[in-house]
Amino acid sequence: MLHQLLERVNKTMGFETARAHCDIPCKIYDPITAQLATLSVLRFLDLINELEQKESLSLADQALFIRLVNDKEKHAAKVKDEVRIIWGDFIKQPQIEAQPDIHALVHNIMMAASAGKQNVSREKGESLLSLVNQFAKHFWTFKGVDTYQAVCPYPPSEKLVYPLLKQD
Amino acid sequence: MLHQLLERVNKTMGFETARAHCDIPCKIYDPITAQLATLSVLRFLDLINELEQKESLSLADQALFIRLVNDKEKHAAKVKDEVRIIWGDFIKQPQIEAQPDIHALVHNIMMAASAGKQNVSREKGESLLSLVNQFAKHFWTFKGVDTYQAVCPYPPSEKLVYPLLKQD
Amino acid sequence: MLHQLLERVNKTMGFETARAHCDIPCKIYDPITAQLATLSVLRFLDLINELEQKESLSLADQALFIRLVNDKEKHAAKVKDEVRIIWGDFIKQPQIEAQPDIHALVHNIMMAASAGKQNVSREKGESLLSLVNQFAKHFWTFKGVDTYQAVCPYPPSEKLVYPLLKQD
Amino acid sequence: MLHQLLERVNKTMGFETARAHCDIPCKIYDPITAQLATLSVLRFLDLINELEQKESLSLADQALFIRLVNDKEKHAAKVKDEVRIIWGDFIKQPQIEAQPDIHALVHNIMMAASAGKQNVSREKGESLLSLVNQFAKHFWTFKGVDTYQAVCPYPPSEKLVYPLLKQD
Amino acid sequence: MLHQLLERVNKTMGFETARAHCDIPCKIYDPITAQLATLSVLRFLDLINELEQKESLSLADQALFIRLVNDKEKHAAKVKDEVRIIWGDFIKQPQIEAQPDIHALVHNIMMAASAGKQNVSREKGESLLSLVNQFAKHFWTFKGVDTYQAVCPYPPSEKLVYPLLKQD
Amino acid sequence: MLHQLLERVNKTMGFETARAHCDIPCKIYDPITAQLATLSVLRFLDLINELEQKESLSLADQALFIRLVNDKEKHAAKVKDEVRIIWGDFIKQPQIEAQPDIHALVHNIMMAASAGKQNVSREKGESLLSLVNQFAKHFWTFKGVDTYQAVCPYPPSEKLVYPLLKQD
Repeated sequence: MLHQLLERVNKTMGFETARAHCDIPCKIYDPITAQLATLSVLRFLDLINELEQKESLSLADQALFIRLVNDKEKHAAKVKDEVRIIWGDFIKQPQIEAQPDIHALVHNIMMAASAGKQNVSREKGESLLSLVNQFAKHFWTFKGVDTYQAVCPYPPSEKLVYPLLKQD
Repeated sequence: MLHQLLERVNKTMGFETARAHCDIPCKIYDPITAQLATLSVLRFLDLINELEQKESLSLADQALFIRLVNDKEKHAAKVKDEVRIIWGDFIKQPQIEAQPDIHALVHNIMMAASAGKQNVSREKGESLLSLVNQFAKHFWTFKGVDTYQAVCPYPPSEKLVYPLLKQD
Repeated sequence: MLHQLLERVNKTMGFETARAHCDIPCKIYDPITAQLATLSVLRFLDLINELEQKESLSLADQALFIRLVNDKEKHAAKVKDEVRIIWGDFIKQPQIEAQPDIHALVHNIMMAASAGKQNVSREKGESLLSLVNQFAKHFWTFKGVDTYQAVCPYPPSEKLVYPLLKQD
Repeated sequence: MLHQLLERVNKTMGFETARAHCDIPCKIYDPITAQLATLSVLRFLDLINELEQKESLSLADQALFIRLVNDKEKHAAKVKDEVRIIWGDFIKQPQIEAQPDIHALVHNIMMAASAGKQNVSREKGESLLSLVNQFAKHFWTFKGVDTYQAVCPYPPSEKLVYPLLKQD
Repeated sequence: MLHQLLERVNKTMGFETARAHCDIPCKIYDPITAQLATLSVLRFLDLINELEQKESLSLADQALFIRLVNDKEKHAAKVKDEVRIIWGDFIKQPQIEAQPDIHALVHNIMMAASAGKQNVSREKGESLLSLVNQFAKHFWTFKGVDTYQAVCPYPPSEKLVYPLLKQD
Repeated sequence: MLHQLLERVNKTMGFETARAHCDIPCKIYDPITAQLATLSVLRFLDLINELEQKESLSLADQALFIRLVNDKEKHAAKVKDEVRIIWGDFIKQPQIEAQPDIHALVHNIMMAASAGKQNVSREKGESLLSLVNQFAKHFWTFKGVDTYQAVCPYPPSEKLVYPLLKQD
């Protein structure tokens, strides 16, 4: 620490330049975490709807229902957090200019995730996934990475937008 | 639960209308939590700068420095969360139409809070507070509540935007 | 770090005095966060009681009931945390002497918040609010700040104790 | 759920009596968690003081110092939480009458845990442990369980108050 | 920090040796936290089963049921975390050689804790407790500390494995 | 709830079979979250080492160092959690038989993640990544999904194991 010494150094190299090249949390942004959380919301909606098909619910079914509602809640909140992080930390002026409706898209994701919390209908989960995939597509375009669509290799077997990476 | 019964009821009253009047987390939005977190960021910046004035730092000072950096981080993150909640849950089409730059303001708060994390200069905290106060002003306007400015009754003794409430 | 140097400094300025003027988490105490959390408990109780009025509950209603119970739980816990922080960090010997029943008041808040968790009757929430408002009043008195009562500008439209600040 | 049915039942058995025999979080209170967290605070203080003995600190030492300060912080906070839970949930009128200074003891623990956060001297950790052990002793007395003292079977090898259980 | 100086010191003392004697989180491992969390799972199962005995459930009973399911979930997760910490941080090559099935035991605990989350039958909790007690016994054997069994001094009054400490 | 009714249903359909087809958290396992967290650990190590190249560190650099150490800690902990979840919830008898050293691999990941917490050398991060990629490869093999290697599209530009999905 020793500020006498530091002050001298700071004067010569300058504070802002010293910081400019590194900016944690640091550039490892990937929309896959938001996409996975969205799939979970959809999956919990499916399981809730399976319960709804039953004629009556045992105490264990009801405990499962509670757990499904809770986990749906947590994952919808995670969607919001993960999207907000990329939006707030990665998206700056150039990205906004390239895609001026990015703010509205993110805001729609927030509202769709709330709808996913508040409802038990599958449609709400599907709308959320469609928006989050759209966000992923924009993200990879901002990064100059092409994308492809594929069915995710687990339930609920929905299509996700993935980055097209060069096999090594 | 007993779905035979429920189905009958659902058919008559309709699901969406049943949900419309209540929407948790439920309408107790208040920008004061974001404002308090912003004040904390500013306060930690002030205390960091007090440390900077010292000629050298004892081990206890250094431990304090670590704690200040950590707490600054946590409160800047809280600013983001609290503003995002109001933006995502309370602000809908009518508010966006009344204040079309609300998305850009919220995005600026995200970036200013990141700057508050990444820097130790007081100016970054002041910019953040100015934006968060602006957000608070919009919020109370959306609610139809007048506001006033006052110096907060604790350090760092900065001006906050408060709702003007009728004394009872 | 360099302890040879530091030791010399520490000997001359003394450790305790060096720390005395700053004590993080640092003096930005405000009972409003505990008051807001209490309002949320009350609000969730109201919404639970609205559900109770229905003849039967759809699956979506039941999901809402689960979310209301969970959020009530979380906010009652928050009341405890926020009050405990002010009590443990801000209230010291002079405040205890000025208000010797402050310990009992805080303990009553803990028990009332537990009751708010364990029950679904509105009265439990009202008792909690009354205690937390009382705590807020003591707090502002300790700080030498006058207070006023006003109906909070959101549901459940209950009276809160607010600090009387000089408009700027 | 079916409220028509429930109402009838509620009328006959009464709500309060139905709830009286079970009160979650439910009676598994044990001060050992607070005692363990206190030992951790002491241990981190010891490790910080080992670092202080070094002539200079490598970058890895400094990273360790940061981690020690953080973990000390977290465990001191845990002490507060765990003691607060027992105090707020388990200690009721009969315990307060049996031990009228229990409020002051708990308040002292809060202040000692804050001191443990803010300082790097071992003495602060020792004071905290002494208070927490005293709290443990009261707790077991309230429960009608005898106690003994033993050196804990891990660093920092301090004496803890343990319940005296019948071997089976 | 001053790396010129530090580099010199690092060369003479070596980095790895400097770190070898201290390894935070630092040696205060105690299976009691996993055991207490397991008892809580069992206790919540008991309380759920008490509810099951009732002819019908009031809204307050149902809220209690939700809270019990949630707390059971949280404590089963805690069992996993606490066991994983000891397994991942304390158990190294010598312990694995002394007890080659320790990995399988820990894996069984993970599966049993999941079963405790997913079910409402007491048997699942009892199996979990038996495994966690076994883990505690291994742990104390690794440490060279004898153990004894005793009924825990709170509900659900199950037998726990405790370390046999020398009274002081 | 109404147990008279439920009991009848339970008798006919059986409890265990009713639960067998769904097992939340529910089958959306993906090692990418553990891989991303590992990349973050590596990235923070790189940024720490950039700081080490500087002749001296400004207060802002030191604040950055603290943040890097903290974030490295958090992400190493996340690696452990994410791997533990897949291991504890997804890996059962058939997978263990197909890959008997899976327990040892997971245990090595726990120890490597701890080493990543405790050290500032890049090698520790590289070892962790190699193990986590190996775990990812096993996971996809268990699922019957082929994999490929590619450089991740962000810093630290390391090779990851990805599932080979059919483009749609």
